[in-house]
Formats: sequence, C-alpha cells, structure tokens
Amino acid sequence: MHTAEILSQGDEVVTGQTVDTNAAWLSTQLTGLGYQVVRHTSVGDRLADLVLLFREIGARSQLCVCTGGLGPTDDDLTAQAVAEAFARPLQLDPQALADLVEKYERAGRQMPAVNERQAMLPEGSVRVDNPWGTAPGFAFDGGGCFFVCLPGVPREMKGMFDQLVAPLLAERFAVRPGSLVTLRTIGVGESNLQQLIGPFDEPDVVLSYRTMLSENHLKLRFDPEVGEARITQVVESLASKVGKWVFTIEGLQSVSEALAVFDTSGGSHVEVTARHLADGGHTLATAESCTGGRIAAACTSVPGASAWFLDGRVTYSNAAKVALLGVTSEALDAHGAVSEVVARQMAEGVRTRAGTTFGIGITGIAGPGGGTEAKPVGTVHLALATPERTRHRLLRLPGDRERIQRLAVASALELLRRTLVS
Amino acid sequence: MHTAEILSQGDEVVTGQTVDTNAAWLSTQLTGLGYQVVRHTSVGDRLADLVLLFREIGARSQLCVCTGGLGPTDDDLTAQAVAEAFARPLQLDPQALADLVEKYERAGRQMPAVNERQAMLPEGSVRVDNPWGTAPGFAFDGGGCFFVCLPGVPREMKGMFDQLVAPLLAERFAVRPGSLVTLRTIGVGESNLQQLIGPFDEPDVVLSYRTMLSENHLKLRFDPEVGEARITQVVESLASKVGKWVFTIEGLQSVSEALAVFDTSGGSHVEVTARHLADGGHTLATAESCTGGRIAAACTSVPGASAWFLDGRVTYSNAAKVALLGVTSEALDAHGAVSEVVARQMAEGVRTRAGTTFGIGITGIAGPGGGTEAKPVGTVHLALATPERTRHRLLRLPGDRERIQRLAVASALELLRRTLVS
Repeated sequence: MHTAEILSQGDEVVTGQTVDTNAAWLSTQLTGLGYQVVRHTSVGDRLADLVLLFREIGARSQLCVCTGGLGPTDDDLTAQAVAEAFARPLQLDPQALADLVEKYERAGRQMPAVNERQAMLPEGSVRVDNPWGTAPGFAFDGGGCFFVCLPGVPREMKGMFDQLVAPLLAERFAVRPGSLVTLRTIGVGESNLQQLIGPFDEPDVVLSYRTMLSENHLKLRFDPEVGEARITQVVESLASKVGKWVFTIEGLQSVSEALAVFDTSGGSHVEVTARHLADGGHTLATAESCTGGRIAAACTSVPGASAWFLDGRVTYSNAAKVALLGVTSEALDAHGAVSEVVARQMAEGVRTRAGTTFGIGITGIAGPGGGTEAKPVGTVHLALATPERTRHRLLRLPGDRERIQRLAVASALELLRRTLVS
Repeated sequence: MHTAEILSQGDEVVTGQTVDTNAAWLSTQLTGLGYQVVRHTSVGDRLADLVLLFREIGARSQLCVCTGGLGPTDDDLTAQAVAEAFARPLQLDPQALADLVEKYERAGRQMPAVNERQAMLPEGSVRVDNPWGTAPGFAFDGGGCFFVCLPGVPREMKGMFDQLVAPLLAERFAVRPGSLVTLRTIGVGESNLQQLIGPFDEPDVVLSYRTMLSENHLKLRFDPEVGEARITQVVESLASKVGKWVFTIEGLQSVSEALAVFDTSGGSHVEVTARHLADGGHTLATAESCTGGRIAAACTSVPGASAWFLDGRVTYSNAAKVALLGVTSEALDAHGAVSEVVARQMAEGVRTRAGTTFGIGITGIAGPGGGTEAKPVGTVHLALATPERTRHRLLRLPGDRERIQRLAVASALELLRRTLVS
C-alpha cells in the first residue's frame, strides 16, 4: 500500500484562525484513490520550519500533497522552502508568467509586479495550472517522495486536485481504488448503530462511522479486488441489521432484490425526502414554533423546492398561532402552546389553509429558559397532517438550543419521509 | 516566547472522516494564553508512528497538547505510546479506577472490564480528571517537553482544558497573555478590508483576519506589556478606517469617546441586531421568499427571541404571497414576484398583519435555475418596512444557492441593524 501525507502551510492554521478543512478533504480523496494517509502536519509561515519539514517528509513518505503558501506576499514561502530543502533553485516559468499576465488582462487590470513571484517554480518541477485562481501549483520529487503543492483556497485546490492532480497520480503510482458504499442513517446514534451491527470483522472491507449534522453514515470501503456479488452480500447483511434507520444507500453499482426496498439514489436526508415528495406529486406546508423557520429553510435549501414547498408559517407568538393557523384559544388555554392538541391544530391548520398534501406542525421548548418540571427544555410536540389522518410524536430532545432545534427539524423530516415510503 | 505543538490521534482524522476542529480550538486557546503554536500533527492509530512522533516532539518543543486515543479499545494507544517513547511503564492509578467505577455505578451500570485500561497511566504522570466523560487525561515531561494528553471528544476536551489544564500551564510556565480586541464586520470582503486599512505595521500588535460565515473579523493581538491608552489608540485608528462595516467591537477594557459610537457589547451579527431591537422595545415580522425561512431561523436562534420576533411567513408561491401578505395580483402580473414592488408589499403586508415595529420582505432568485437575462440568479429585492417608511435594496449576490441565501439573510439583518442604530 502506498502511504501519503498532507502538509498545510499558514499562520492562520497553526494559530487556530482557520479550521483546516483542506486536510480532511484531501484525505478523503486520497483514501478513495487507494492511498493510506498516515499523517497530517500544519506549520506556520516560517521558512526554517518548512525546510525542515519538507526534508523530514521526503525521507519517510511516498506522496505528500501540500496546500497554502503560494500567494504573492512575503509570508508565502512554499516555493522558497522547496528550493532550499532539495537544492532546486527557483526559476521563472515563462508559461506560468504568461498565464498570470493574461488572467489580469482579462479582468481588465495590469498584473502587480509582486505577483511575478508566483511564476517562479523550483527547478525541475512540473507546473500544475490553476484555472480557478491566480497561483499555479507544482509537483516534484524530493528525497524519496513525490510532492504536489497546491494553493490553500479550497475552491482552487479542489478543482486542481480533481482535474489535474488525480490524473497525475494515476500516471505516477500503480494504486487501484476500492469501492465505497455508504449507508446514510438518521435518528440513531453511533453507539446504537454499533450495537445493531454487532461484531464486524471482514478481511476485505473496512467499516467506519461518520457523523454529519443529524445523520450518521456507515462507510464500507472494499478492497479493489472485491467483486459485485460480495459487495451486495455485505451491504445486504448490514442494511438488514440497521433497517428502517437507513434512508439511502450510496455507491451501489447494482441493486439486488433485498436492497430494492431501500432508496439507492443518494443525497442528504432533506434531498431524499424532497425527492420522495416530488416524485409522488405531493406538496407541503409547515407551521413552526420552536424550530423558528428551520424546517422551511431545510426544505428550501433543495433546488426546485418551489414545486412542492408552498407555504411556511413561523408562529412564535400565540396570537400568530390563532391568526395564521386557526389554533383555538380553548386549546391554548387548556393545554398550553407546547402540547399535542396545539401541534395537531397547527399541522391541520397550515395544511388546510395552504391546500397542500401534507402539513407539519411543531411546537416545543428549545431553551435555554422556559422549561418547567412537566415540560422541561427539549420537550417538542410534532404533528404531521396527511389526507387520511394526523400523526403525532412527543420528542424529548437533549442538548442546547441549537441542538434541540436541529434534532427537531430532523425528526419532522423523518416523520414525513417514513410516511412517504410506508 | 514559548512554543507549543498540537498532536491529534485517530484514524478518523487522517482518513478525513473527521475534520480536526480540536486542533483549531486548542490553537486559539494557547495563542490567547501567550504561547506560539508552531505545528499541528495528526497521525492514525498506529503505535510505531505515535512513539516516533512523541520522541520528535519531545526533542523540539516546550509544550504539546495531545487529543484522542484515550478510549477503552485496542486502537486507543496514547498511553502505551508514551510508555514506550519515554520509558514510563503504565501503572494503575487507583483514584482513576475508583472514579471510573463510580461513574458507571452512578449510571446504574457495572464497569466493563475493558475500561480498566483507562486507569493505567504512564509512570510519573499527573492525572487530569474528566468530569465530563469517562477517560481521564494525564500530563508528564518527555524529552524537554511538557505533554498534556486529553480525550478527543470536543466537549470533554474543552471542559478539561479550560478548568484543569489552563491552571496547570499557568503554574508551569511564566507566560503572560496579551490583549485581544476583535472588530467584527459584515457586508465587506477581506480584500476590501485590507484596502480600507492600508499598510499596518506596528511593533507591538499583530493584526489578522478571520472569516466566520458572513462576518469578517479583524483580530488585534497586543503584546502583554501594551497598556490601555495604546490599545485605545490603535483600535480607534482602525475602527475609523473601517467605519460603518463594524457592527461590534469585542475585548475592550474601556471605551473612549471616539469608540462610544460603536457597539462594544460583542456577539454575532444576529445577536447584536437582536439586542438593538430588544433594547428599543421593538418587534419584528418577516416575509421570505428566496431565503425560505432562513431569516426567521437566524432570529429565533437567539434565546428569548419570542419577546420581539412575532411572526414569520415563508411565501414561496405567488398564491401564498397574495393570501398571507396581501401582495396584489396587479403587482405580480406587472413586475413579477422578484421585484421592488412585491418586496415592498411583502414587508408592509407582514408588518401590518403582525402588528410589529418592523417588517422584512425579501424575494429573489437563489438558483441554480430560474434566472433570466434581466433577472439573473443572485438578483434579490429586499425591503424593510418601518413606522415611517419602507426602505428598499436591490442586491446582486454571487455564488451558489446556499451562498446567495446566506448573503441575503445577512443583508436583511444588516439593513435592520443600520436602521436601528441610525
């Protein structure tokens, strides 16, 4: 197996001003291509540190992808550090300079003299063009390692990696990628998933967990030589154990009969739910109290939501619940705003008024204040009005205000999704 | 100056499954305490790599904070690596074991035998208790470096650092923290900020930039010996250059006359705006189309928003705009839903119906589809109805759907804030 490292340069990373998301992104890509990423290192804008680090990595790794330090200012030191570390003096790359001048010309500006620096590449290195920004990258051999240096701007770095670096690596290293299948779940924690799955010890596949907002993902990374039949067998076994918590499976090349009961089109929880809604020709309206517009915001994050998301009402006050949803004063007086009766009236009220297939009503106590012994912070009443009946759930959600609101949104969308697929 | 490093352990970090937010958080804390953080390193769950790395760091740094690898399973290797790297064999810490047993007892469970491992600490190390979880941390001298090993769970790690590690470091190192003043801005990009500020080269203060969602922060880190008068002078000079884009200044010990025109209570953009609203006894209602509930969600992210956020309406369809806001069919027919007239009618309609001081109306094209030559993706009409008049802004926002929606929310709240402070 080929080992790889990642090196991030920049004071903003080591001082904590920036979270290094580039490193995680590159790791995912390299792991997907079949490399074993063994180390990430970040250093600040200090030449001596960088030179030392380049030499260390050159002595121990086969591949290193570096980000940052390619800008035009004095604290952009990557090329200079490479020059010193591996005796590769900087040389003007005429094509790089011509590209830079042209980029400025196209923007109607003259290139500042300071940017000429960005066309000075270490001797014997291969230029990696940057159609997404100004600074070109470069690749070279140093010690026993193949280094690829890219800019730190995520959009530029990602574009260059996907379109230019990945093909460069494929030419250079005989590494075959395995297959990756992801089971995306919602509403179940990582430890419960582990319990559902039980011991998992297969020689040809690695199982890992990843949490993404309200979702928990099960990632199955199969060795390159594993065939379709074996992949299907493992996924079927896992999916049957996790069952209803799986809302989509990503990365399958073919779908067996046993897997056909699952959605296999992929996407986030709200995207999958939206697709079920749209495919069925249904429409939705929402009436939110404790989630304050988050369910509407989640729905309208999906492009084309205007086809099915017709109306959202954020009724934070009791007066708005009465005026906008037809919630009755009797219900509010007898049960309080945070109650099953009011949640049902909200769901039914918004569905009727908006004329939609479904209506969601949600009311609860997100905190930090407002909790009582009978209705502590985290108490949420959720209702879904359908053409046939209104379903209700009482949720007791943990965490702070932000977490309670986020979990409440996920619960509402999941109740809708389950209703759509049942 | 004392140098510090950060070491993160875990396969989930090096394979990119987890973005290492612990490292950025710890860097910010250590920088704030007066340390110079020079390097972050992440390695996977491999004993040989860890042992090597501990020795490397021991030979070059004065302080290293490590996270992860303290769990009860076989891939939790930190203590064992320390034992091998520095000849500090693992020993049972009776107090650590008693704490573990008690934690399980309080949860009504018996401690699994496997967890006993977590009470085995390297010889001569100091235990760092963990009231937030099971695994205790520990600190020790290795090579010439003081190491502190903490669990990787952010909540536990942060609690332990703040309450136990920071005091431990204060005892150990004579490091004085400098003063940190942050000017939080909105609506202006980093390069424009740099242009407004011009050359900044002061011997006793470091200026840095940080982007946080729609905000750009200017961070001024003063050397420990710098006094109040000098801090005030630098902040006044900078604030006068950036002017109206500054919505709050954080970290001032005293507020001079020139700085009194700025808000100095701190907080996020929505928190500051909410405070101005609440302090003035005002109330707000929102009518959203292209932002789909995001303005309401931002408002209701602030605890206690029910005192001033009375009503939000997400009117994605024209029918809802007419029914819920009183937008006229004439306006929709003559100008289209994305127009100044409709934005104004939305703002005034929701303000009147909800009976609030202010009403926000917003309509636009968030994309990716739906754009035309006259109204390309990113066209947003924003209106704010006040008791006196209705203000309007035409925005041309860049980026994808998510970015356009986010920028539109920030613009709406900023128009409200400016109106409140003017």
